[in-house]
Amino acid sequence: MPEVRRIGVLTGGGDSPGINAALRAIVRRAYAVGVEVIGFRDGWQGPIEGDDRHVCPLSLEDVSGILYTGGTILGTSRTNPFEKKERDGETVWEPTEKVEAIKANLKKHKIDALIAIGGDDTLGVAHRLGEHGVRTVGIPQTIDNDIGGTDYAIGFHSALATVTDALDKLHTTAHAHHRVLIVEVMGRDSGWIAVYGGLAGGADVIIVPEGPPEGSFSVDEVEQVIRRRLEQNKRFSIVVVAEGARPRELGGKQVASGEVDAFGHVQLGGVSYWLAEELRKRKLPLTPRVTVLAYLQRGGIATPFDRLLATRFGVKAVEFALEGVYDVLTGLRGTAVEAVPLAQALAECPKPVDPELLRVVKVIGGS
Amino acid sequence: MPEVRRIGVLTGGGDSPGINAALRAIVRRAYAVGVEVIGFRDGWQGPIEGDDRHVCPLSLEDVSGILYTGGTILGTSRTNPFEKKERDGETVWEPTEKVEAIKANLKKHKIDALIAIGGDDTLGVAHRLGEHGVRTVGIPQTIDNDIGGTDYAIGFHSALATVTDALDKLHTTAHAHHRVLIVEVMGRDSGWIAVYGGLAGGADVIIVPEGPPEGSFSVDEVEQVIRRRLEQNKRFSIVVVAEGARPRELGGKQVASGEVDAFGHVQLGGVSYWLAEELRKRKLPLTPRVTVLAYLQRGGIATPFDRLLATRFGVKAVEFALEGVYDVLTGLRGTAVEAVPLAQALAECPKPVDPELLRVVKVIGGS
Amino acid sequence: MPEVRRIGVLTGGGDSPGINAALRAIVRRAYAVGVEVIGFRDGWQGPIEGDDRHVCPLSLEDVSGILYTGGTILGTSRTNPFEKKERDGETVWEPTEKVEAIKANLKKHKIDALIAIGGDDTLGVAHRLGEHGVRTVGIPQTIDNDIGGTDYAIGFHSALATVTDALDKLHTTAHAHHRVLIVEVMGRDSGWIAVYGGLAGGADVIIVPEGPPEGSFSVDEVEQVIRRRLEQNKRFSIVVVAEGARPRELGGKQVASGEVDAFGHVQLGGVSYWLAEELRKRKLPLTPRVTVLAYLQRGGIATPFDRLLATRFGVKAVEFALEGVYDVLTGLRGTAVEAVPLAQALAECPKPVDPELLRVVKVIGGS
Amino acid sequence: MPEVRRIGVLTGGGDSPGINAALRAIVRRAYAVGVEVIGFRDGWQGPIEGDDRHVCPLSLEDVSGILYTGGTILGTSRTNPFEKKERDGETVWEPTEKVEAIKANLKKHKIDALIAIGGDDTLGVAHRLGEHGVRTVGIPQTIDNDIGGTDYAIGFHSALATVTDALDKLHTTAHAHHRVLIVEVMGRDSGWIAVYGGLAGGADVIIVPEGPPEGSFSVDEVEQVIRRRLEQNKRFSIVVVAEGARPRELGGKQVASGEVDAFGHVQLGGVSYWLAEELRKRKLPLTPRVTVLAYLQRGGIATPFDRLLATRFGVKAVEFALEGVYDVLTGLRGTAVEAVPLAQALAECPKPVDPELLRVVKVIGGS
Repeated sequence: MPEVRRIGVLTGGGDSPGINAALRAIVRRAYAVGVEVIGFRDGWQGPIEGDDRHVCPLSLEDVSGILYTGGTILGTSRTNPFEKKERDGETVWEPTEKVEAIKANLKKHKIDALIAIGGDDTLGVAHRLGEHGVRTVGIPQTIDNDIGGTDYAIGFHSALATVTDALDKLHTTAHAHHRVLIVEVMGRDSGWIAVYGGLAGGADVIIVPEGPPEGSFSVDEVEQVIRRRLEQNKRFSIVVVAEGARPRELGGKQVASGEVDAFGHVQLGGVSYWLAEELRKRKLPLTPRVTVLAYLQRGGIATPFDRLLATRFGVKAVEFALEGVYDVLTGLRGTAVEAVPLAQALAECPKPVDPELLRVVKVIGGS
Repeated sequence: MPEVRRIGVLTGGGDSPGINAALRAIVRRAYAVGVEVIGFRDGWQGPIEGDDRHVCPLSLEDVSGILYTGGTILGTSRTNPFEKKERDGETVWEPTEKVEAIKANLKKHKIDALIAIGGDDTLGVAHRLGEHGVRTVGIPQTIDNDIGGTDYAIGFHSALATVTDALDKLHTTAHAHHRVLIVEVMGRDSGWIAVYGGLAGGADVIIVPEGPPEGSFSVDEVEQVIRRRLEQNKRFSIVVVAEGARPRELGGKQVASGEVDAFGHVQLGGVSYWLAEELRKRKLPLTPRVTVLAYLQRGGIATPFDRLLATRFGVKAVEFALEGVYDVLTGLRGTAVEAVPLAQALAECPKPVDPELLRVVKVIGGS
Repeated sequence: MPEVRRIGVLTGGGDSPGINAALRAIVRRAYAVGVEVIGFRDGWQGPIEGDDRHVCPLSLEDVSGILYTGGTILGTSRTNPFEKKERDGETVWEPTEKVEAIKANLKKHKIDALIAIGGDDTLGVAHRLGEHGVRTVGIPQTIDNDIGGTDYAIGFHSALATVTDALDKLHTTAHAHHRVLIVEVMGRDSGWIAVYGGLAGGADVIIVPEGPPEGSFSVDEVEQVIRRRLEQNKRFSIVVVAEGARPRELGGKQVASGEVDAFGHVQLGGVSYWLAEELRKRKLPLTPRVTVLAYLQRGGIATPFDRLLATRFGVKAVEFALEGVYDVLTGLRGTAVEAVPLAQALAECPKPVDPELLRVVKVIGGS
Repeated sequence: MPEVRRIGVLTGGGDSPGINAALRAIVRRAYAVGVEVIGFRDGWQGPIEGDDRHVCPLSLEDVSGILYTGGTILGTSRTNPFEKKERDGETVWEPTEKVEAIKANLKKHKIDALIAIGGDDTLGVAHRLGEHGVRTVGIPQTIDNDIGGTDYAIGFHSALATVTDALDKLHTTAHAHHRVLIVEVMGRDSGWIAVYGGLAGGADVIIVPEGPPEGSFSVDEVEQVIRRRLEQNKRFSIVVVAEGARPRELGGKQVASGEVDAFGHVQLGGVSYWLAEELRKRKLPLTPRVTVLAYLQRGGIATPFDRLLATRFGVKAVEFALEGVYDVLTGLRGTAVEAVPLAQALAECPKPVDPELLRVVKVIGGS
């Protein structure tokens, strides 16, 4: 096993609070044993370019004071050095010439191991680079929490804090207004934020992309909950809906942000506005009002949970590299951080929301 | 001057954090001199009905623990015992039979003076009831801060806290994404929240209902700021837009929430989605994304500023009643709380945003 | 197995944010299957007294709006119906006549199963009552997190949020002042709050009751870290110390809050003031300043993590009772909530802080 | 009037949230008219030294992203180029050779006007330098809010937010514990933080340096309030005490932090621990517990109020310099920012807490 003297690190995909805490831990852990850390900027674009604008040594000083800050000091991008192709009905990722550029630049900068922090796209690249001889360790990071191989990804609990705070705020004012307050949260493929946030914030209806058994939701069901609450003299309802939830009325079609909707024009607000309009047609005695949290959920400072998780992931990622354990991600399993093969973790993506939590919603929610 | 032995109190209009602190102060101040306080529920609906469901004595115990809670323990409504009529081209408010109901119920419950907490509608009723022999004191409350006669209304600074917190969150993530983040805030007639929140949160563009000299804004100007920032290598812009802002492209027509827009269908999201769509057409290298704070701005706990203001207003409202000073509101003037005639305060509604702050936006903003 | 128709619930020991969320979940879960819930007030004092002042039915309405509030709507106490005795060098708990009172009152109120929410004292009583024929289920709750049988107890993450927020605040001002900022946190027997809070808040020194191998800390070591940082031109240090940490200079004696200290008089502030005074004698170029968080750590609203944990614990506690699974606590194991025998869980109390976290402190902290 | 081409700026005294917002506004306002800004580090030490380590140009880039951060990017110190002397029973400030150093360095760096941000010490120097031909503008900044010439100084409302949040937290837990919770807040000479924070946070007792008419407080009076509340079945009390409050039992002597107390040894915690000990002797059925907020009050992010105030002060300070208005501070008067002569403002220091607020405490507090 060749000695590790210099570790590279990059951050890819959508950012989330906690990334900087991971970078800080990586640098501190590495310097404790005399290993250097080199940062690559703008996700995979960094090692592809490999020039001065994209490569910077990270010193202890550079990571001082970033424990709690959101965003990423290295910047991010969605650049992918592999190309998605369909072959014989299967999806395959073919290397482009950028893969060779990465290999050359890592060699040029004497990088012995590369730590990639990101979601399934970023970690997928890390895994495939392993087949090309690059030694990588992944750190799972996404507010959507839909990466396999770990109980929680960095950023999820911080996003939860934002959603829960929003629901708390709406509850204080909801009593005074006879309204249906619809809150759209993130989650294109999975309902982690909607379910955890909705439960923590006491939502009356929670709508997720996973949907009921049939895979989508109906406005009738939403209306029923609201009317049942009205009968109990509860003159408001709070509905949490994930951006990727699909209405049965549209044949389970997604009415997602930024896409052309059923009306033939761009509905930037997506499913929540569609739902509001449908409820409006039902002539409820409550006016629907929409709040779209959007990028608020990526923002803010990292919660203690995410700082601890990120710190532990950063420490372990360096230790895996030092021990020669590659092609893995740092996975939280209970209270331990373990090395989980990337192949295994990626096979579970997108990880659906914990069914036990869906059961909890069912047995106590909306009553 | 007849002795005051029993004071009535009600809360009307949209709620905001701080109302409960005012109720607590009213009860504490009154009980300190042996005066009883009776609460009327659901705004003016309370004294109109005057039954057990709408009338409740408020004891010290009832207002314990509500200093910081949002909403109003008395509930609210938009019921108005006067009817708006046009006569000879002028708007007049004609009393309905509800005015007599109020007078009868106040007499029945032995109310010597009535404190009304609310915005211009609620305070307008209080003033007109004065002409019918009802002794009232008003307390200004609205997150929009557009009531005359006071530097600040209860709720404004709490709404600011929510808007500023949202902008802080967006700033942490904005660097990582090449986007125009559009944040829609409240303000149908005035830009108080947009200007104060935008300045406190460091927005790059602030668009208000008052508009530039011409009374509306143009997408061209917004685009210019974004492009100027791009030239300075700032790869994101944050735009704060008040819900009541009117685009010049539509002839200064308001594209407000819940109304039929220029496209002939209901644009629940209003001006911010319209702006996003217009910017999208300009083919900027930044994708526009919309956050709609909506009712979040009414929610949450009251800030220290609002608690102090509400406490002082509550104390003074009782004292005005005890001193026989009626048909006034409690107005903050610098650091003092004064009795301002309701007629004078209402004549200034809607109070436009402080021009000095607009000047500050101009000399330091968006650079 | 006799059918369960009525469940009792009580909360004991020091309170912490999240208890009310558990009560809400218990009531919602029970009512979903038609089971009644009776609340007992003031911990074990409730079933001991069994009178109207201490017994109250809990309806859905009673637990509405308490999802996020701190404290406990049932009140708490440290009353213990058993008496601690030393016999043959061993500690034994002997039943007092209060045990019979509890049994009689549970029978009188037709309680089929009793859910006890609290720390090791409260859960210890629950376990010993089992030997007297009372069917109990425990829910672990303590900000100290030192209960066995569960990864986390309700309240711990909320306390962490307070400590971390305090450290964030101190960091912003620490740069401007040449000071050693000492922050005393809770933890008489274990360093959970100190280690997790210190790591999440970026403390430079973390001192715990578990101490280094020798079981206590020395001022020399603290001084060394501060001086090493000074050499690196870091003109401040932040020290987190658990209230139960024991200085080696005093022979490992605890200098705890409210107790008579080595100087023969009451040192209400405890170890942190002692440490400040010792550092002062060392003539460092930095003035030591003490912040004592004290009861702040029990206060505030529950974090999303604690709300979810408490909700899941409440749901499962009812389900264990319905299934006839008694003398257990609801234990978080990874992402699952399991039934852990109380005997086993209590045997592990006080649970020492996770050694892996102490290792993380060692490899990256204070550098 | 000579043209202003280059403005210097420094920050002195204890820091507080909002300073950086002022620096940002100064730079933005100056650059808008092509004026350069030079920062001096570490308070008056900066222009005294005048070397590269203490002098740095401030560009728009340098002040980007600091709108909400606490602390000061320029650092601070308590260095004073004048010496305090007693002459004929009067205090006079005599210039040391450092005054000449300042003049020489300002000339060397071509500084046309100097903006000093700080409390009475820092602004006192600015005023006295005026007598030596230096053109200065002051910006009042201190969490204590005891500077004359302005309704509020930068930092006060941010400190209030911290104190109020602490009291909110204590209230949630206070019900469950039979305790007297004593919270020590800042304020050596005036009770601004104690009174405003105590009112906003609903404290039951508020003790200030100004004291009752006699100039100090008695433990008897504190005990009376606590016992009266006990009679009303309120089993806890929250006491806010300013660090500079003086107990009548000690002859009105201050028991301040870090000083030798009546017991002959250093009581780092000061008056709050003394009060706890005295209450303990009274054998109340409630145990006293102390929380010392200390430097937490200087920390954290600036509130919207402070950001707006600081931004407006920064803009106006530059404009005063451009207009040739010197030897003034930027004073908030109602909603306007005015130029207030430094001599006049300093003559009012320390500004005692607004008596109207003390009256409010008296008529509604502690009941």
